[in-house]
Amino acid sequence: PRVFRIVVLPGDGIGPEVVAEATKVLHVINSTSTNFELKLEEHQFGGGAIDAVGEPLPASTLKACQEADAILMGSIGGPKWGVDAKIRPEPGLLTLRKTLGLYANIRPANFASEGLLEYTPLRPEIARGFDAIVVRELIGGLYFGRRKEASAEPEVGTAWDEMIYTEPEVQRITRVAAQLALSTNPPLEIHSIDKANVLACSRLWRKTVTETLTKEYPQIKFDHQLVDSTAMVMVANPRKLNGVILTENLFGDILSDQSSVIPGSLGLLPSASLAGAPVQASSADFKPTPGLYEPVHGSAPDIAGKGIANPIGTILSAAMLLRYSLGLEKPASAIEAAVRKVLDLSSAGGYGLRTADLGGKVGTAELGDKVVEAL
Amino acid sequence: PRVFRIVVLPGDGIGPEVVAEATKVLHVINSTSTNFELKLEEHQFGGGAIDAVGEPLPASTLKACQEADAILMGSIGGPKWGVDAKIRPEPGLLTLRKTLGLYANIRPANFASEGLLEYTPLRPEIARGFDAIVVRELIGGLYFGRRKEASAEPEVGTAWDEMIYTEPEVQRITRVAAQLALSTNPPLEIHSIDKANVLACSRLWRKTVTETLTKEYPQIKFDHQLVDSTAMVMVANPRKLNGVILTENLFGDILSDQSSVIPGSLGLLPSASLAGAPVQASSADFKPTPGLYEPVHGSAPDIAGKGIANPIGTILSAAMLLRYSLGLEKPASAIEAAVRKVLDLSSAGGYGLRTADLGGKVGTAELGDKVVEAL
Ligand SMILES: CC(C)[C@H](C(=O)O)[C@@H](O)C(=O)O
Ligand SMILES: CC(C)[C@H](C(=O)O)[C@@H](O)C(=O)O
Repeated sequence: PRVFRIVVLPGDGIGPEVVAEATKVLHVINSTSTNFELKLEEHQFGGGAIDAVGEPLPASTLKACQEADAILMGSIGGPKWGVDAKIRPEPGLLTLRKTLGLYANIRPANFASEGLLEYTPLRPEIARGFDAIVVRELIGGLYFGRRKEASAEPEVGTAWDEMIYTEPEVQRITRVAAQLALSTNPPLEIHSIDKANVLACSRLWRKTVTETLTKEYPQIKFDHQLVDSTAMVMVANPRKLNGVILTENLFGDILSDQSSVIPGSLGLLPSASLAGAPVQASSADFKPTPGLYEPVHGSAPDIAGKGIANPIGTILSAAMLLRYSLGLEKPASAIEAAVRKVLDLSSAGGYGLRTADLGGKVGTAELGDKVVEAL
Repeated sequence: PRVFRIVVLPGDGIGPEVVAEATKVLHVINSTSTNFELKLEEHQFGGGAIDAVGEPLPASTLKACQEADAILMGSIGGPKWGVDAKIRPEPGLLTLRKTLGLYANIRPANFASEGLLEYTPLRPEIARGFDAIVVRELIGGLYFGRRKEASAEPEVGTAWDEMIYTEPEVQRITRVAAQLALSTNPPLEIHSIDKANVLACSRLWRKTVTETLTKEYPQIKFDHQLVDSTAMVMVANPRKLNGVILTENLFGDILSDQSSVIPGSLGLLPSASLAGAPVQASSADFKPTPGLYEPVHGSAPDIAGKGIANPIGTILSAAMLLRYSLGLEKPASAIEAAVRKVLDLSSAGGYGLRTADLGGKVGTAELGDKVVEAL
């Protein structure tokens, strides 16, 4: 059988708890397959790695990630390694993204089922039908430009950060958005978000997105919106943003977080960070894409260790991993179907289970077990 | 009587319509006072000025603004002067802000009355009691750093923008936030928003805010939050941000827009951009502060010329102008009381009037007349 290496980075806070449930699910997939084998290996990453070996991304972890077919991550960070700490977990994540060339962060935000509409903080009639995929450029912009700390000479007391983009960087992330838009027929609309009335980078962004889509994907409808106005629309009338929301690194950081609370179920949402355009495993042109998969939520130090975190976001991230990095569509869909069954209240066989974040009482491990059972 | 010069910049789109109602109100204030005189002079600004004289901020307009005691603005921009146009309205606004040193943008976001809760896009129980003032640094950061367009040599195809802050810039805006926090007893809490886990500017920001508040305002409680997480909290649990939200230019652009749709009544919200800390006109240490006052909404080209725009945001901006720049507390409060009366459904004499944006049928001019009547 074909062997796939999956590096598992449990990380900090609730990371290890939710990752344990996702690996439980992957082990089941593994044990029931005959034509492939999943080899999972755990590595240190984040705050835990700082405590153990003095750095968030030890060389051995980075090497394993570079050699892996895909990476499954929990979450990193916590008050122990705060902004004032000398060595912090976040640079480890940024280095990992950059080194592996993971330029495309993909975060779907939608309602897994109508029943979940009761958890949205918006009026249900405003949130109903919200269904967007945020495509965030992940290794450019303000995150990776040059910068100067206020403490550095000369000009102590002045700090600066550089936002920088090149045309090819914008082209390739635009193609990722287009690829995703083409996954439905007719294609999804693309909403490209920038601040072109102020920033030079945004003007480059807008021009390149227009050129790339017009030339290479004439069948896809798209528009341009300003980031400030988008932050309003996402609250006041989120369906207007249905389709693909395409944006640069920092705007994507803000807007993807904002979008992910609309379904009212942060704990349910997965994400993928890819080094290429995602192609459905079932498609004829499928090519595996290296990628890092993680839930949208953070390390939630306040509930860590209590066994109450929602593992669904991580389990669905594992499904994305099978689909985009390993080309295993069947087990990916099987996991998604199992998750729907476990969450669903309405349909015949649905279990209607809920963890604490959704007002329920089911624990992390129990929910993982139920997904395994439904599989 | 003391003479105050107020420069009026109606601007584009619905700007002239809403400004006309605010000046109507100011004329009434003027005609009923004996100890001061308001001299209003209108000037060209924005897209209209581009069409008329080829630039958004003609020298005569800038000069008038520099000599004025305060500025009342409508809104600028529109599809005619879009991002691709060679000469755009926005740089005019940015130059005006910078030249006048208007570093403090102040935008309250709250429910003028409980009755307005029906317009929030959030679940009423989540939005109820949301009451925040966004204090945005307005003449620093990415807006005023150096930048390079993609079309410029060398390295055609690469664009960059510089985010830059100095310690004194952060100190003075922190003091504005503190001043506003002290307007209640006990003081409001300050939530300082940054992206200190990535940006050098944000680390300077966080350190300077902490030092300034700890040393100069030990009685004020404050915390630091990341911008991505703030965008979530503002939707999921906005009351957690009650108090003063203190942030840099670009984050403030996004978060103030996001916050302003929570009350569901964008058309009702005023804003002030000041060259100093605002001191209530009724306070013993009152000093007039040069300032530009404008509604929070944009030029809304789709409804321009129809006479249906909501003038309340502009009328309330005029009230802020009287309070902060002219020291006229009484007429300021009188305008606010008249507005409450016009909007109010519940109380005895309330008129309960609504413009189209709030589902009503009252026109722009009629609403202005009613405010005058209530005065
Ligand atoms: C941890 C932090 C550096 C990171 C980011 O800003 O990219 C996080 O917020 C995310 O979105 O993955
Ligand atoms: C018009 C634009 C340049 C401006 C800004 O981004 O500051 C506007 O969005 C605002 O918030 O006043």
